[in-house]
Formats: sequence, C-alpha cells, structure tokens
Amino acid sequence: MAEPTLRDVALLAGVSPRTVSNVVNGYAQVSPQTRAKVEKALEQLDYRPNVLARNLANGRSGQVAVVVPYLDTPYFAELLQAIIPRVRARGFNVLVDQTDGDRAHEAELIRRKARGFLYDGMILSPLGLSQADLAGRDPDLPLVILGERSSDGAFDHVGIDDVAASCEAVTHLLSLGRRRIAAVGDQPYATGEAAQRRTAGYRLAHERAGLPVDESLIVQTPRFNRVDGATAMARLLDRPDPPDAVFGYSDLVALGAIRVLLERGLRVPEDVAVVGYDDIEDGRYSTPSVSTISPDKSTIAEAAVDRLLRRIESRGPVTGEEFVVPWTLVARESTVGRGAP
Amino acid sequence: MAEPTLRDVALLAGVSPRTVSNVVNGYAQVSPQTRAKVEKALEQLDYRPNVLARNLANGRSGQVAVVVPYLDTPYFAELLQAIIPRVRARGFNVLVDQTDGDRAHEAELIRRKARGFLYDGMILSPLGLSQADLAGRDPDLPLVILGERSSDGAFDHVGIDDVAASCEAVTHLLSLGRRRIAAVGDQPYATGEAAQRRTAGYRLAHERAGLPVDESLIVQTPRFNRVDGATAMARLLDRPDPPDAVFGYSDLVALGAIRVLLERGLRVPEDVAVVGYDDIEDGRYSTPSVSTISPDKSTIAEAAVDRLLRRIESRGPVTGEEFVVPWTLVARESTVGRGAP
Repeated sequence: MAEPTLRDVALLAGVSPRTVSNVVNGYAQVSPQTRAKVEKALEQLDYRPNVLARNLANGRSGQVAVVVPYLDTPYFAELLQAIIPRVRARGFNVLVDQTDGDRAHEAELIRRKARGFLYDGMILSPLGLSQADLAGRDPDLPLVILGERSSDGAFDHVGIDDVAASCEAVTHLLSLGRRRIAAVGDQPYATGEAAQRRTAGYRLAHERAGLPVDESLIVQTPRFNRVDGATAMARLLDRPDPPDAVFGYSDLVALGAIRVLLERGLRVPEDVAVVGYDDIEDGRYSTPSVSTISPDKSTIAEAAVDRLLRRIESRGPVTGEEFVVPWTLVARESTVGRGAP
Repeated sequence: MAEPTLRDVALLAGVSPRTVSNVVNGYAQVSPQTRAKVEKALEQLDYRPNVLARNLANGRSGQVAVVVPYLDTPYFAELLQAIIPRVRARGFNVLVDQTDGDRAHEAELIRRKARGFLYDGMILSPLGLSQADLAGRDPDLPLVILGERSSDGAFDHVGIDDVAASCEAVTHLLSLGRRRIAAVGDQPYATGEAAQRRTAGYRLAHERAGLPVDESLIVQTPRFNRVDGATAMARLLDRPDPPDAVFGYSDLVALGAIRVLLERGLRVPEDVAVVGYDDIEDGRYSTPSVSTISPDKSTIAEAAVDRLLRRIESRGPVTGEEFVVPWTLVARESTVGRGAP
C-alpha cells in the first residue's frame, strides 16, 4: 500500500490540497464543517503528516543533538537520562552520539558543514576539545558545552567549579589526618582539561594546608574508568611508600582502586581512605560506599536544555553565558568508615 | 547571513541548479571542468547540503530510533554503546528515547501514526509491551524487538533464552549445596515478561533437581534496580528462616542485596551466595565480584542492527525472524568465593 498523500486526502474530502494542509497544520482559516470533512478523510486514509518535511519547510529539523564521550559511562548515562526527557518535553526529538572523547571527532561535530540541518542545536560534553576548536565552531550553531572548562563568556557553558570541588575532596582527606594522598586520573595537558582541573584542586588543597605536594603521587591514567583506577592502585601499592589515601578523578576510578585495596587485604578507610567524583549510583551501594563530589545533575540538565532552547528560539546574536552549578561533598564509608551517614 | 542555496551556488559557478545538484549528489554525468567550478563555488559560499531534505525526497529520513526503558540502567547503557556506533557506521543517524518501561508509551511508539517519517526503523527494548500490542503495530515499520520474550516468528526478535539461562544460574546455586534460594525480582503477570521468564527458569531448576519450590522465597520487586534488591534482601533477612542463596533478576538487584548482606555482618558467599544477571561492569569490580549470566551484548547489537537494516532496505514483505544469542554463566566471588577465576 502506497503512503497516502495530501492530494489523496483532498480528493476524498472534496477540498483543495491547501485546505488539507491548513487543517493538518492547525491554521484557523477553515470552517468547522470543512475541518470535519478533512479530518474524516485523514482518519479514513490513515494519513501521517511528515513532521520532518514540515519542520524543514520552516528552516528547522525539530531535532536536538546530545553528544557525550561514552554512553556506557554511568555519569554520562545518568546525565542523558536527565537531559533527554527534558528536551522531549520541549517538543524536540533527540539525536544521540558518542565521540570516544576523540578531539578530532568533537571538533568536526561543531564545524559548520557537519550538521547539514540534521539538528537545530547541540548539547556537547567534550573531553578533548580545545578552546581553539571552540573558537572555530559554526557561529550559527546553537551550542551548549557541558563539563570541565571555563567559557570566559565566549560560549554557553554549564558545569561545576571543578578546581574548588577537587580542592574540597582533598581537604576532606587532609582533615582526616592523611598526608600521603595519591591523585589518580591525571592526564597530559593536550588530552584533558577535566583531569588538569582536578589536579589543580589537589595542588590547591595542599597549598592551603601549607603542605608540600609529592609529585610522584600524581598518577596519570588513560581514562577515568574502573580499570584505570585498579591498574594505578596496584602500581601504587607496589611502591615502598604506598599512599594512605586516594583522590580518584571519578567514582569509577575510586571503585577500581577500592577493588584492588580489598583484594590485597587492606582496609578502606582504615589503611587507605578513598574519595571519588561524580556521585554515580554504584558508589552508594558498594561496600564500602564511596565518598564523592556530587554535582547537581538535574540542575545541569535543566540549565543546559533551557539555555539551548532559548538560543534556538532567539533570532539575533546572544552572548555566551557561564552557568555554574552547585555541588556537595558527600562523606561515606570509604573515608569516614561505618559511622558514615 | 542567509544560508546559501543551490541557486546561489549555480549563479556563482555559472551553471544550472540541476548541475549543482548533480555534483552535490555525486552523480556521474558532470564533466571534470564543470565539477571543479561547482566545487569551488560550494567552498566559497560554504554551502551545506540539506541531508534531511535530500533523504526525505527519497522517502527516507536516514534516521533510526533506538528505544530502551531507562538510559541510566547500566545494562541498557552498555547495549546502547554497542548499538549506536554500529548504526552510525551504516550511515544512519540515531534518535534515542526512553520509555520508563511504560506499556502505553511503548505501544504508542510502534503504532502507525506515531513516527511521522522521523525514522526509517526502530530497535525497541520493551518492558511492558504485550504480544497483543505487538500484533497491532505499524506493519510498515521496520522493527526489531530486543529482550525477554519469544516472537514465534511474528516479528524480528533478538535475545537470549532467559528460561534456560535462569535455570542454569539457579542450578549453579543448587550445585553448591544451597537449598533455600530466594528469587528476587518477580513481577505480576501484567507487568513483566522478563521477570516471569526468570521465575520460570528458577522453577525449572528445582524441578530438574527434584526439589520443591518454597513459594515464599519468590519475591516481587517494582523494578530490577539496586534499591529493589536492597529492600527485598532486608525483608528476607528479617524472616525466621532466611535464605542461604539469592538469584537476583539483574546484577543491580544482586548488588543491592549484597550491600545489605554485608551491612548486616553476613559473609558472601559463605553465609549467603548471590548470583545476578546481565554481566554489567559494576559486578566485575565490586567486592565480592558478582557471579552472573552474561549475554553476548556485541552479538545482540550486531544482530539487531543487521536485521533492522536488511528490513529497511528490502522492499517486499519479510518474515519475522527469531535470533537467539548465546550466553554464559560466569562464576565469580559472590558464589564460589575468593578461589574464583
């Protein structure tokens, strides 16, 4: 059966195709009688309006792209779960993609020719993207950047103050009397601004406490995954002077580190205290539960969607906006033991 | 700046709009000299082809919808991570949605009028959808169903044999000498075929071993989440005759149960052995690591994408196909203790 067209509906209803189009698009200038006739014909032929074609005629796709580095990383999965229903509630469909944190892929996504009218705007959580890449983006693409960087007002950005949050996490470990705190998750400058901001917070906490940083305790890892935390922890424990605490750059890193500590017969937090970052659900149910920095994910989602849709709907130029979201330190068993709330 | 059109490019290149269209669409009948002129004009004007409009002219959107109950459930997040790059590699963009496992929402998605040409096909992992809902689906919608149900050849379905897998998980617990095995995650008939197939496997294992089923050990939970496992476990431990093993209907249920067991000072597996389902990464790094049924997720993704694209590309009617994917039982610390591989 061929798909019925507007013309088929018009023929059956005995009206012009333009009248059918007016009914389908909800325009007012149709008499109730004509409307009823057309609606009956639409029903009878099981006509489906071509939403995309209609949007495109208005210069829109009605679609928003949401792009994260990895869909199966719990933090990003939780973020998507918070973002997608909010975009859908605003009447847009959601295209999803993942970049593997690849800088070239991220940069390509925000270049002018990439989008080909597929989406009206994009929420992007980049890992590798540089400020230079961002400067070269399509100026006509409504874009909201999530995550660890500062925008200086050059683009729309939603995130928490990672340096302050990391400083607080490490200060928490220092306040428990720990003095050999490993920082697990650092990355070379070219790779990750996220990592460097956490390392900056680690340094700041030591500086504020008037304590020196042992550079050998700052450990680089390829990513922020469980396997990265486990591998780094194993190496740290093989040293003659192992750490008495770990600041993991994500909860996954912390969970990987905890797995290795327990395997080696060490107690968490008595022998080694561990704090993570992200407040994913895993860390709330693991034993020990994981102390962490908890960004306010629903506020991040709300702010990002709001900002993007305001930009899509505005016609003129809009200045970039920096939206800083609150966070809290949640102290659980992995730092304060069973007495934890 | 207004978006340049094909006509602008044609004017600048001194050719007809049809010639520009031939170049943009890669058709052969253009001389190298003309092609070069057009390409220069395209570059100069920074022309972007309207991919969607082009697809729509061919009766396609070039988009595929992938719909799961919850984006932030690790099993579905891992499945998406496996599916999306495979769909993208086949040249389609991916629309993602989540249904909260709501039957009405799932049924609406596969009805004729719902899609309005937004996508050329759908991969759907339903929770509540009934066989009757499936029978009433849009017959023209290329659709692949994932998860726990049988298709009887009426539609395309990719999944593992959940009854057999559940039976094996429970047989594993029986083989370790456990005789009071709780089944955590059952659901009333109307809600979840997934749950019922696991309960059927639980019963089958007892039957094969010639052992009676204690009906009071089959516990219903609202969903398959950590909180469900934790709540159910707490109630089971408050009984005068607590279980000596737990079959959790997901790894999340198992992880929630383990959290409560350890909190109460019980040893896993010595006092209570626990097996889960799904083989998500969490269970590999938790302490104890979680024994589980491991479905072959890349084969599921591969089969689903392959089947969907074959159906999109075929013109005539195609018979429904049942694709049964392999699984394995992975015995880890939560059942066999530290000696586990």
